[in-house]
Amino acid sequence: MAKRLLGKEVTAALNEKIKAQVAELQGKGVNPTLCIIRVGENESDISYERGATKRCETLGVACEKILLPADVSQEELLSVIDKVNKDPQIHGVLLFRPLPKHLNQSVIENALDPAKDVDCMTDGSMSGVFTGKNVGFPPCTPQACMEILDYYGIDCTGKKAVVVGRSLVVGKPAAMMLIKKNATVTVCHTKTVDMPSVVKEADIVIVAAGRAGVVDASYVAPGQTIIDVGINVNAEGKLCGDVAFDEVEPIVDAITPVPGGVGSVTTSVLVGHVVEAAARTLA
Amino acid sequence: MAKRLLGKEVTAALNEKIKAQVAELQGKGVNPTLCIIRVGENESDISYERGATKRCETLGVACEKILLPADVSQEELLSVIDKVNKDPQIHGVLLFRPLPKHLNQSVIENALDPAKDVDCMTDGSMSGVFTGKNVGFPPCTPQACMEILDYYGIDCTGKKAVVVGRSLVVGKPAAMMLIKKNATVTVCHTKTVDMPSVVKEADIVIVAAGRAGVVDASYVAPGQTIIDVGINVNAEGKLCGDVAFDEVEPIVDAITPVPGGVGSVTTSVLVGHVVEAAARTLA
Repeated sequence: MAKRLLGKEVTAALNEKIKAQVAELQGKGVNPTLCIIRVGENESDISYERGATKRCETLGVACEKILLPADVSQEELLSVIDKVNKDPQIHGVLLFRPLPKHLNQSVIENALDPAKDVDCMTDGSMSGVFTGKNVGFPPCTPQACMEILDYYGIDCTGKKAVVVGRSLVVGKPAAMMLIKKNATVTVCHTKTVDMPSVVKEADIVIVAAGRAGVVDASYVAPGQTIIDVGINVNAEGKLCGDVAFDEVEPIVDAITPVPGGVGSVTTSVLVGHVVEAAARTLA
Repeated sequence: MAKRLLGKEVTAALNEKIKAQVAELQGKGVNPTLCIIRVGENESDISYERGATKRCETLGVACEKILLPADVSQEELLSVIDKVNKDPQIHGVLLFRPLPKHLNQSVIENALDPAKDVDCMTDGSMSGVFTGKNVGFPPCTPQACMEILDYYGIDCTGKKAVVVGRSLVVGKPAAMMLIKKNATVTVCHTKTVDMPSVVKEADIVIVAAGRAGVVDASYVAPGQTIIDVGINVNAEGKLCGDVAFDEVEPIVDAITPVPGGVGSVTTSVLVGHVVEAAARTLA
């Protein structure tokens, strides 16, 4: 049976660190604060907001909310962002995307001060992931994958890592982070020929294909570590990942479940970024 | 015998396109202009400057030079950059790096208007390479590699590509460009275990290791296309690449020589960026 890489264990360790950092900041008169900006009433936004709010509470981080109607104008939203940029009490900002179609997403994303960009939506943060410079913050989901590898002591140096998916939110940044951790990294995607044979070669696989059950038994081999970023709903209405867990689990060495894997770590990574952003204001 | 991928053929085709674009812009009253800023008297800077100046002349692009002493102050250099940013007659800027140690390179690099950043030195341009957004310009050397693949009709879709080297100037951007061209891309580096076996698997190999003769016969296989980015001087004082050409050439399908390969394309890519920057001012 493969070792389960459990989000809750990683999160517990992260939370201890975050709580200690919050206490230290509060001792210096700084109260780490996240501002959530939500446009409209998208269900998955509301669900993520609920999780983030709860996690903030648990960790002693303040959480402000700015709720805007789905038909908010570009000017109005930009002026809200300008206000949070200037507000020294707000350290990190989470703006749910995609935004409604009438808004220019790229302009709005880049209006945010990179120093408060805890969810990697500005070009500045993106360049930080690519260059390895300390600009902004990396996206929370691929960082959650790295936190899992770190927590379970899975050293990447010299290992073959394969990333399935080339999105800007997960695939590409995960590849950059794995390169930084000294893995030999291959990026696969929909145009990859004979993906099973490529994935089978890897020691570490990060799956962010965005489709249920893409990675089945034909993709995997003994000894592998599988990190499943997917969140899908299957025919029976149950949450599942991009990996066919029941087939893959008996073959590999270690695997994250869905739910209970990467997703549960992401919120703590986000709150950790807020606290780190607050700490940087003192530096 | 492997097909030689010759820089001069690629450059000739690029130059035709650039000249036509220059003529069109001049017809509209726009005179594409590159500004070269050089700090100090570094020999390799002067040599590159000579090549760029000549290429500009050939292609009808104006070239201004600002030469500053090696002990120029940060303020002075920043004020020069501010001036060129504001000058509507200057469309592209080339600043040689690395800068002398007393200057804060990152601050200076990011002072340049990304619209004039024809050599990818700002974080904005870097994020453009990573995100695929049309911000600034990609670095000239990896783009020269792509121009060679395009010119010789080497389709990347579904092919296995291996990049040797993870630098910010070549390796990482080349990987991003190859992913965009739908290749399955692997990045190797000094921590890669058994690099020959990884490189042997590839259809297309871009070598940017920065060391003469790293890729020898043990790395390659029949059918491969090898692009050699290296520029080194060997024991006999002759220019050579990162690939052991005499060993590798008889095995593979196609290969760039050094000199006469990637390096000779780079200058035209740079001048092409200046012309494109000028064209964007009309958009």
